[in-house]
Amino acid sequence: MADFNAIAKQFTDFYYATFDSKRDALQSLYRPHSMLTWEGSPIQGDTAISTKLVELPFAKVVHKVTTLDAQPSSPSVASLLVIVTGLLLVDDSPNPLQFSQVFQLIPDGGTYYVLNDIFRLNYGA
Amino acid sequence: MADFNAIAKQFTDFYYATFDSKRDALQSLYRPHSMLTWEGSPIQGDTAISTKLVELPFAKVVHKVTTLDAQPSSPSVASLLVIVTGLLLVDDSPNPLQFSQVFQLIPDGGTYYVLNDIFRLNYGA
Repeated sequence: MADFNAIAKQFTDFYYATFDSKRDALQSLYRPHSMLTWEGSPIQGDTAISTKLVELPFAKVVHKVTTLDAQPSSPSVASLLVIVTGLLLVDDSPNPLQFSQVFQLIPDGGTYYVLNDIFRLNYGA
Repeated sequence: MADFNAIAKQFTDFYYATFDSKRDALQSLYRPHSMLTWEGSPIQGDTAISTKLVELPFAKVVHKVTTLDAQPSSPSVASLLVIVTGLLLVDDSPNPLQFSQVFQLIPDGGTYYVLNDIFRLNYGA
């Protein structure tokens, strides 16, 4: 599964760098039938997802990936599941937040789009 | 997506109750092409996955689900993605471990099997 892991790494490097620098550019990664569940709230479609991400109430954000796993998600197309756990540094807070995020990436003309995106903060016990 | 959420809840209730009481009975949820990535180690096939789960080095384990999200994962079949975050209480340790787990469930003759399973413990910052 080395290839999937390389694609997952390339995708998450790009995704989080874009999220942390110019969130409005993430829209091109989604399609009208893409789904985001953000902290339990379901949102559908590239436009609505982009609006949600752009309007998140923090000015500065840095994602630090702690673990990254990938698996092929279909026997018939080269789609893949990517699961990330990591830390979110928001604005100038000294306390990073733990998060988990899952993507399903679907191949589309030499690149991939995000069909599924589920994000959760992980609070301590 | 109410239906997907209900299936996800039913599946995870069953999965973790079985995991915590008779781990060897989980094998029937997987197929020969199922994949588990356990703390970064990839394992393929129902038999190997069951062996891995049964041999995990703890005698008593209790999963407590903190968050549960689900999304349909395909435009053509009624498969779904399930992401769980929660706490793992292992043996008699007073310190629960945070975990994240993702399943992809594939419909199969009135029930579902697990095609993808990715498990990670989440360590603090």
